[in-house]
Amino acid sequence: MSTHILGIDLGGTKVMAAVMDGEGNLTGRARAKTRGWRDDEEVFRTIMQIGHQAIEDAGVEIDHLAAVGICAPGPIDFETGYIIETANLKFKNFPLGPRTADEFGRPTIIENDVNAGVYGEFKSGAARGARNVLGVFIGTGIGGGLIINGALYRGSSTGAGEVGHIIVRAGGPRCGCGNRGCLEAVASRTAITREIRKAIKHGRRSSVAKLLKKETDLLSGKDLKAAYDSGDELVKKIVNRAAKSAGIGIGSLLNVLGPEIVVLGGGVVEAFGDEFIARLERSARDIAFDINSKDAKFVRAELGDDAGVIGAATLAREALTQSL
Amino acid sequence: MSTHILGIDLGGTKVMAAVMDGEGNLTGRARAKTRGWRDDEEVFRTIMQIGHQAIEDAGVEIDHLAAVGICAPGPIDFETGYIIETANLKFKNFPLGPRTADEFGRPTIIENDVNAGVYGEFKSGAARGARNVLGVFIGTGIGGGLIINGALYRGSSTGAGEVGHIIVRAGGPRCGCGNRGCLEAVASRTAITREIRKAIKHGRRSSVAKLLKKETDLLSGKDLKAAYDSGDELVKKIVNRAAKSAGIGIGSLLNVLGPEIVVLGGGVVEAFGDEFIARLERSARDIAFDINSKDAKFVRAELGDDAGVIGAATLAREALTQSL
Repeated sequence: MSTHILGIDLGGTKVMAAVMDGEGNLTGRARAKTRGWRDDEEVFRTIMQIGHQAIEDAGVEIDHLAAVGICAPGPIDFETGYIIETANLKFKNFPLGPRTADEFGRPTIIENDVNAGVYGEFKSGAARGARNVLGVFIGTGIGGGLIINGALYRGSSTGAGEVGHIIVRAGGPRCGCGNRGCLEAVASRTAITREIRKAIKHGRRSSVAKLLKKETDLLSGKDLKAAYDSGDELVKKIVNRAAKSAGIGIGSLLNVLGPEIVVLGGGVVEAFGDEFIARLERSARDIAFDINSKDAKFVRAELGDDAGVIGAATLAREALTQSL
Repeated sequence: MSTHILGIDLGGTKVMAAVMDGEGNLTGRARAKTRGWRDDEEVFRTIMQIGHQAIEDAGVEIDHLAAVGICAPGPIDFETGYIIETANLKFKNFPLGPRTADEFGRPTIIENDVNAGVYGEFKSGAARGARNVLGVFIGTGIGGGLIINGALYRGSSTGAGEVGHIIVRAGGPRCGCGNRGCLEAVASRTAITREIRKAIKHGRRSSVAKLLKKETDLLSGKDLKAAYDSGDELVKKIVNRAAKSAGIGIGSLLNVLGPEIVVLGGGVVEAFGDEFIARLERSARDIAFDINSKDAKFVRAELGDDAGVIGAATLAREALTQSL
């Protein structure tokens, strides 16, 4: 019996696929830009092509795959395998699970991308062996996932783990979701860019001013890190404040969830690394009760871009075992 | 074999005990004031006397008790059964679990009071049959408890479920815990009293002014409800705002936990009832994503003051079954 699994991670900007062998190693890979503004059928074709390329790269036959795991942004109907909707793609009630199963002719599971990423870190990355894990990914937005009692937790709603959309500053800045003062609205890369743009408009100087000509310009992690390292006072102040705000939300979640490990990833964390985490951690521990802080570890995600494909492939493998 | 369990609920103002028979009925009861300002040994004697009185009231013999369940405020060391500390009592690293076991000579479990109350509502009250439950008790403070996948969830820290201490208004009013802007600092009876006192100091009129002569005076649920019903505009505005703020925190928790049921209890909810819940619920559903709101039910706690003793007794019964 084959033990190879195809994992696919559909993101807003790129699609990645990899084949995982029976030992959990990635033996073949492929990736492409998502081009999410194109219609759903075209994006679907891209995803499938990337899947086939990864299989080819791994040197295995489709018939030898044991299963496929695919993850995607946005809420998923776990009964039908449909993507309900996604922020940056045209998928709306799109049967991504069933059609991927049809394409490869193998048992297929579908999972939310952040859940898959946290599950990857839990099974093969920074949170290996933990029982209760809070995963927080700080990038363009803020996503999260929960491992509770050693299993991925989706809640009765199947939509649990949306840690970017807890309110930490009621009446504060407007979030992409429509609310005011969400964690995502005060600590994501989008929030950092907004605050820098606002300060520049009010006459503050910054080396990144030239990168913010259009209202839609978003500073990359790399841009922010370069400005930070060059001593740009405005960027330093706003990035440090974002780390502190992220800690306020995460400290709140320590009090609710009492996790063993907090795994931190995403573009902002990757760009700023340990200093950002240290600042966030201090702020979180300030908020959390001693009992909920003292044994909680803060760690950096280890799998980077691979977390989603590894998590999706692992979930597919486990679903297969459970259904035998 | 006896199937009677003694449940004891040690609160900041009163101690309650009841005997639960094999069918889950409470067959004997007793209660007294805690007098928490007295030394720990004296308070401990009171608790034990109330336990004995409940047993007598039930007409059973101590030797016929199968087990004892006791719950108390504050963090508990579940390995030793010690209360680590409590806000309104002098217990500090007090061996409440072991000494209760010694007193009655029966297997004894100890649990946090809010966890026990939520567990009571889950097993015998408003959340019967649910799989994932968020319990929030709004009174002097705000406490909470979580049922996850059909079991009480304490987290790796054993201190999870502290929903009163998530930050909803960073930089906002100071909380009893030292942080600023906790849910408890914007939506508890203490927060409501503080806001009313502040407005009166600024010259606003209110029928409750006469009840707030001393800095330590705290308006009771009854006082607040009477003023609200008599058309006191200040009290109405501040109570309604507290309901909305409570909803902001609970909406955030819907996004994190995706519960099936939100059980609401505590003095403020009991005093203001369905109108308060309706206002809180609207605010929470405004915050939560559709997927996390649409199937979540908001219900009022059913067991009132009995939730703690019922929950503690039920946990004791289950611990007994598991250890057989």
